[in-house]
Amino acid sequence: MSVSEVSVIGLPGFPEVSVGANLAALIAQSIRKSGLEVKDKDIFVVAQKIVSKAEGQVLKLADIEPSAKAQRWARDHGKDARLVEVVLRESKRVLRMERGLLIVETQHGFVCANAGVDTSNIASGQVTLLPKDSDRSAAQIRQDLEREFGARLALIVSDTFGRPWREGLVNVALGVSGMNPFIDYRGEKDGFGGELHATQMAVADQLASTAELVMGKTQGVPVALIRGFDYPEGEGKGRQILRSKEKDLFR
Amino acid sequence: MSVSEVSVIGLPGFPEVSVGANLAALIAQSIRKSGLEVKDKDIFVVAQKIVSKAEGQVLKLADIEPSAKAQRWARDHGKDARLVEVVLRESKRVLRMERGLLIVETQHGFVCANAGVDTSNIASGQVTLLPKDSDRSAAQIRQDLEREFGARLALIVSDTFGRPWREGLVNVALGVSGMNPFIDYRGEKDGFGGELHATQMAVADQLASTAELVMGKTQGVPVALIRGFDYPEGEGKGRQILRSKEKDLFR
Repeated sequence: MSVSEVSVIGLPGFPEVSVGANLAALIAQSIRKSGLEVKDKDIFVVAQKIVSKAEGQVLKLADIEPSAKAQRWARDHGKDARLVEVVLRESKRVLRMERGLLIVETQHGFVCANAGVDTSNIASGQVTLLPKDSDRSAAQIRQDLEREFGARLALIVSDTFGRPWREGLVNVALGVSGMNPFIDYRGEKDGFGGELHATQMAVADQLASTAELVMGKTQGVPVALIRGFDYPEGEGKGRQILRSKEKDLFR
Repeated sequence: MSVSEVSVIGLPGFPEVSVGANLAALIAQSIRKSGLEVKDKDIFVVAQKIVSKAEGQVLKLADIEPSAKAQRWARDHGKDARLVEVVLRESKRVLRMERGLLIVETQHGFVCANAGVDTSNIASGQVTLLPKDSDRSAAQIRQDLEREFGARLALIVSDTFGRPWREGLVNVALGVSGMNPFIDYRGEKDGFGGELHATQMAVADQLASTAELVMGKTQGVPVALIRGFDYPEGEGKGRQILRSKEKDLFR
């Protein structure tokens, strides 16, 4: 009987990424070193952190003048007021600002802690911001890789988010290119002829979570390659995954 | 350079599961048919639906007498009052009951739509409930498979949940056995010597999402095998993933 198999491979030996780096070139280099061949329908998952660095989405905290609001909240919760200031600037709307946690809707529409502003895996005193437009970033890297390898690809820019109700973080898709971020079973029949009503799977998020299994946090594997998954091709965007405030029961 | 690779395989030709079925025996049969060998550290992901069926967590809607509350809400939202009644009985607490959606905390502590009560992939007029104790179910199937194959295994019982803020559903872990559901990077150093503060990854959820890539909804693949992932062994439980109401900012 035929067995369906999907595999995810962490690209080894990825170099430190600097401002202005050409990520597609670095990925191609890593692919060649690893002896892997790139094929049609391969999916690349790229950690947001290196996209932000390459695009110069990096701030020095020493340059930040915190507002009175940021100073007050930082003092009350033992935080760095400059970091709080950056988070507030990146936010369109604050959902929760309590118990030392800042859960916000970012200017792009992501709901997450600290607006995705991150102090890890970057030199001390600096922070990374999310890419300005993760879908555009994904499309750019994908197009460059498609040219490089002559293959039809999909690409996901991923980040690590918490969620309500469940402990622990999972990777999700910020930017998507070359695929529909959803597989839609609505209207299809299940094995009993019953209609599947509300089953729209967020496959781009699931692919991001799959990639995290080989990325880890401390291992320096910011790019993964997923193959064997027959995703729905098309010009989908990561921003389609964002539920609007009007449709959301928890905002 | 060494390449890390994780693969996920959908077990083919899985039979329809009846009440009282021995899932470990069915999984072993499917493994043998597929020609796969089971090794130490393999992870099985089993869809909640077949666990519920095997354990007899199935109700006939014709047997349900809906309460006045269930009748009223069902009428207002075009729902089946008997189904609403079952959902309310399975719930400890209702978080949202609006726009035709019922988001509840189940008796077990899961926060999800419709308390996990499901009308798909079961004969018309019947519904499945979640397993009574998904961790116990996971442990039982895992122990049986370990005996059968003489290998150290982990096992996850998975289900498909929605989430706030993001469209689409993803698979999560309900029950876990043989592994810690988290990988904890707190206190470790990142590549720059900075401490990783809040990075506890919910790997069991990510493994459930990975498995969904080969399960689909309509394809009749209720069991997947993940290999190559060096998970933290131990007697973790799926219920550890449930954030308590007291710690939750969105309940």
